[in-house]
Amino acid sequence: MSMPRILICGDLKFAHKELRELFNNLAEVVTLSSSIRSRADFLIEFEAGGKFAGTVGIYRRNISKERIGIFDKELIKALTTAGVRWIAQNGAGYDEIDVAECKLRGIGLSNTPRVVDDATATAALYLIISCLRHFSLAERSLQLSQWKTLVSPGMAHDVTNRTLCILGLGGIGLRLAHLAHAFPMRIFYHSRTPPATPSPDCASALTSTSMSLGSAIPPWCTYVPSVKELCELADVLSIHVPLVPETIGLVGKAEISAMKKGSVLINTARGKVVDENAMIDALETGHLSSVGLDVFPSEPSVNPRLLAFPQAVLLPHIGGETYETEYERELCALRNLRDFLRDGRGTNLVPELRE
Amino acid sequence: MSMPRILICGDLKFAHKELRELFNNLAEVVTLSSSIRSRADFLIEFEAGGKFAGTVGIYRRNISKERIGIFDKELIKALTTAGVRWIAQNGAGYDEIDVAECKLRGIGLSNTPRVVDDATATAALYLIISCLRHFSLAERSLQLSQWKTLVSPGMAHDVTNRTLCILGLGGIGLRLAHLAHAFPMRIFYHSRTPPATPSPDCASALTSTSMSLGSAIPPWCTYVPSVKELCELADVLSIHVPLVPETIGLVGKAEISAMKKGSVLINTARGKVVDENAMIDALETGHLSSVGLDVFPSEPSVNPRLLAFPQAVLLPHIGGETYETEYERELCALRNLRDFLRDGRGTNLVPELRE
Repeated sequence: MSMPRILICGDLKFAHKELRELFNNLAEVVTLSSSIRSRADFLIEFEAGGKFAGTVGIYRRNISKERIGIFDKELIKALTTAGVRWIAQNGAGYDEIDVAECKLRGIGLSNTPRVVDDATATAALYLIISCLRHFSLAERSLQLSQWKTLVSPGMAHDVTNRTLCILGLGGIGLRLAHLAHAFPMRIFYHSRTPPATPSPDCASALTSTSMSLGSAIPPWCTYVPSVKELCELADVLSIHVPLVPETIGLVGKAEISAMKKGSVLINTARGKVVDENAMIDALETGHLSSVGLDVFPSEPSVNPRLLAFPQAVLLPHIGGETYETEYERELCALRNLRDFLRDGRGTNLVPELRE
Repeated sequence: MSMPRILICGDLKFAHKELRELFNNLAEVVTLSSSIRSRADFLIEFEAGGKFAGTVGIYRRNISKERIGIFDKELIKALTTAGVRWIAQNGAGYDEIDVAECKLRGIGLSNTPRVVDDATATAALYLIISCLRHFSLAERSLQLSQWKTLVSPGMAHDVTNRTLCILGLGGIGLRLAHLAHAFPMRIFYHSRTPPATPSPDCASALTSTSMSLGSAIPPWCTYVPSVKELCELADVLSIHVPLVPETIGLVGKAEISAMKKGSVLINTARGKVVDENAMIDALETGHLSSVGLDVFPSEPSVNPRLLAFPQAVLLPHIGGETYETEYERELCALRNLRDFLRDGRGTNLVPELRE
């Protein structure tokens, strides 16, 4: 019996040695070679005698969409028909994979949660500092040989003692809370799942359960029951929810209007969670003093209105990109796939596919 | 008897109301009006009948040098002769005031220590994140509509778990240590004054003494006995010493060469503490992967070799400039001056002038 195949779909940068070790005697590794330039090129290789025939698992990075498109309903269906049983996404987000179709077809999908928490929260903290202090603007001023001229000291504010509102207190949001607490900032949050309210006598039991999940919510993080109320409190609103149907446009015109004049919006999650036009309008009227963005609705293109705005701090979606984090992400995704091959069920199955 | 005068030398931005309240019935306030364009214009006003005649105290900002020059030996001598007894510098640094001449002439000099600690340490943290992650470069890339192209993920490193070496563990260095500990980073430091090494039985006494000074050195900050040894350990070297004769060129060619290949140099203290040519040479050979600078040897001019270097993150000396900090600095400097007028001795006399 020949070995099953696994496909590296999108480049592997650092974990080449680990790839060989993990799949030694378990699977034959095939890769998305440069000859494959379209979805048609891609799918034909899954047919009998093709390079990808017999592929049961796929390691995937978002960058593969540049050649074969996102993993939409059509592609998931075709892959399932070809025998693929597991997709191991490299990344915390999997909004470019049709989860409902995976569920329908019985195909497994894993992601790499927690691995990007530290790097992404660090990027959010950087954007918070830059926006409150107008450092990015000052750097650009200096590059134009204008010493300080673009920044007036009345515009810049200390991070310390500002109010940080975190929308989505998952791994990244919680990590940011810890980094921001060092200043300290005052911290409020809203999550889809409100925190359990313990009666006094079960407080310790709750704490120990939360601790075992590695996600204890510290007492200095205060829950706020709605997105709009959260917005009203914020000097800085930082977004850390995944992109799912319910979060598209979650921060819309009403929420941005509810924010205080001169407040700051930070997004390192996904561009489509924010109504971009409402955000830019608020920048232009001065209602928002600044925005810090690592994500955009139609990456890699960036709205030219944003690029023209001096107080916007814009990063090219590199919140999770460090040598250490990329290596750990690759390793985590490859291990998830190895576990599937070895045990029939991969690690880090996404929540929507858990029974 | 007419009231003594105090002179606001350099602009007061925020604390106008407090200025009136503090000196009500204590002194007449005069200001450096726009008609004064040179040192000669300035000094003539101290003569009998001049606008500054009878001035006993001066509130000073560095910006005043643009019109009357720094407070060098000549100026201190002339001011003392004219009857000035106290200079209240707005700022932690007073390297533009000849302290030895102040001591010789018996004139008091106060600064505003601690007030800028938080804002300056936050700026240093920002530069550390930007340099390790190459965020400034990524922003410039995006502004040129080049998505990610200038940054490769192998270049960027997590802040977490890197080694931060702090040169000068005064108020700013210690505040940075606390902010960096949140990640955590591994923290080493060198100070002119080595920490007292307590024998086991006096450890608690030492701790309580340090605590009462508000400058307890936490156990996770490890003292290193020389600058060069500190440099050898650093992924990131951050400078927080004042500019005094002994610190000019303190981080020179030998120290920079001792740093690890690919390490990062951060300076939010004073430009002349670093040998700028040695630093730029090290950037050009790749020995330093990046530098983060808020200060330069000949501000406001910036060495064009630095401006041309893509991995340099350059701020126009705004580490201490926030609305909150500037207000507190103005208030602190004005209070120091008020205390001199009321009590004959101002608060925050600089260390060199203490008996």
